[in-house]
Amino acid sequence: MDERRFPGRVEIVEVGPRDGLQNEQRAIPAATKVRFIERLADAGLRVIEATSFVDPRWVPQLADAEEVFAALHRTPGVRYSVLVPNERGLERALAAGVTEIAIFGSATETFSRKNLNRSVEDATEMFRPVVRRAKDAGLRVRADLSMAFGDPWEGAVPAAQAVEAGRRLLDLGADELCVADTIGVGTAADVVAVVRGCVAAGVPVARLGVHFHDTYGQGLANVLAALQEGVAIVDASAGGLGGCPYAKSATGNLATEDLVWMLRGLGIETGVDVHALARVSAWISAELGHEPPGRVARALAGAAPVH
Amino acid sequence: MDERRFPGRVEIVEVGPRDGLQNEQRAIPAATKVRFIERLADAGLRVIEATSFVDPRWVPQLADAEEVFAALHRTPGVRYSVLVPNERGLERALAAGVTEIAIFGSATETFSRKNLNRSVEDATEMFRPVVRRAKDAGLRVRADLSMAFGDPWEGAVPAAQAVEAGRRLLDLGADELCVADTIGVGTAADVVAVVRGCVAAGVPVARLGVHFHDTYGQGLANVLAALQEGVAIVDASAGGLGGCPYAKSATGNLATEDLVWMLRGLGIETGVDVHALARVSAWISAELGHEPPGRVARALAGAAPVH
Repeated sequence: MDERRFPGRVEIVEVGPRDGLQNEQRAIPAATKVRFIERLADAGLRVIEATSFVDPRWVPQLADAEEVFAALHRTPGVRYSVLVPNERGLERALAAGVTEIAIFGSATETFSRKNLNRSVEDATEMFRPVVRRAKDAGLRVRADLSMAFGDPWEGAVPAAQAVEAGRRLLDLGADELCVADTIGVGTAADVVAVVRGCVAAGVPVARLGVHFHDTYGQGLANVLAALQEGVAIVDASAGGLGGCPYAKSATGNLATEDLVWMLRGLGIETGVDVHALARVSAWISAELGHEPPGRVARALAGAAPVH
Repeated sequence: MDERRFPGRVEIVEVGPRDGLQNEQRAIPAATKVRFIERLADAGLRVIEATSFVDPRWVPQLADAEEVFAALHRTPGVRYSVLVPNERGLERALAAGVTEIAIFGSATETFSRKNLNRSVEDATEMFRPVVRRAKDAGLRVRADLSMAFGDPWEGAVPAAQAVEAGRRLLDLGADELCVADTIGVGTAADVVAVVRGCVAAGVPVARLGVHFHDTYGQGLANVLAALQEGVAIVDASAGGLGGCPYAKSATGNLATEDLVWMLRGLGIETGVDVHALARVSAWISAELGHEPPGRVARALAGAAPVH
């Protein structure tokens, strides 16, 4: 293992309140979502994707974005980001007092057309005024790149294709690019290819995040590969909630606890109390009516802590 | 990531028929166990831990070891190993026509006393005549070291302690040493410390195997760390069955499919057909009356394969 480029600290982007909840079937009260976000901050998370300002017809579960954001007691030093798909979404986010947004493009044409109803190029142009207006308003902007490793319709995505799509999103003026393995098929070798490709294309590694899924069990190994390339921004979802719209199983997002457990072992700081976080995950999972899919959350719920 | 020492081929030691089944509550017919082993060989596994010749009072589920081994149609080129705790077990194994055994020591005093009813040193001496007689009979001998990373009673295990216990087992005359994170708490940094420690203590890396659990989600990331140190022998259990006697959750052994998925992506040969293996895991899980805990097994059962 090559520990030389391990970051001293990893910034975990907690996506549970948005990515984790958006596909839940059960209606979740806004107050529960607010409490979830606040408890995540209490457990030490410092970047939380709080909700999404997409059209409520697309994601009914997050139709209460304004209500959640208005009720949220914001902890100083914590960044609360929201997903924004277009200028209409940006206007709603600005009206809600949001200070950080994420736009989301696709590395593949098929998913871009299915998710955004336009080509990769047209989607990029759609985001251009969104990013410009957001930056003009003083917001931080992240660009998420979906399907950067594989696509359910197109199969494996060449690293060069993902790098080019990501670079174009970042070049809109975003502060950060996050490459996402939305369906979780990529392995550590693919991660290395995409990260090195991004860096070779001029993306500073300090502005590069990764978002992995555990659908094929690769999430944490992929993070370990990315850390060795110097990546220091990693998405995860409390309890491993969500992230799996295409399969029956509940094994989608990388669980934040599993990530924190590894980073703690590697001596990499996160600021997160893994036991407190596991309690939050147990609580929200009970609210959702199922067990958390994440491993650490279940291990800590089922047995006495070992260390 | 440091790919320079990646092995060209990994020898997967499939422990599903022994470690995967031994804690199942439901009675499993010997014919089902035989079929499981045979189907694993058909899927490309080349080393299969078939059963255990421990006292049937300890592990009633494997009391049919003789029956399973006698009924097994052995595929040429496949190695079938069995667990042997003492000379009595060796005699049974020899009578059954076994050609490869595994002995199992502990890195910690507490587990040694609980599992083997004697100290680490006394257990090592107990195994001395077992290894000698097995080698005299022409058998291959593996030494498994339990609790090499953490122990439910003693907490984290210092790498030097695990290395010393492992080296002593190997020095009995075993062909191979396998360091096992029985409770799954270790992270990649611990793996690197133990593997480098073993190599520094004179254990050739070609004779060093690793056995990781997914209880805390670390299994595959730990394998990725070990591969970078040159390790080429990795234990796994079809479908992720078994391996978790101390927690309620079914997330114990590293799933063979998850391992194969990663190795395939890394360009490391295994000889295993991951889709065929996933079908075997789905079948045996149905026989056991539950879903396979492994991620790939569930993803391939729930959705069309992506690539």
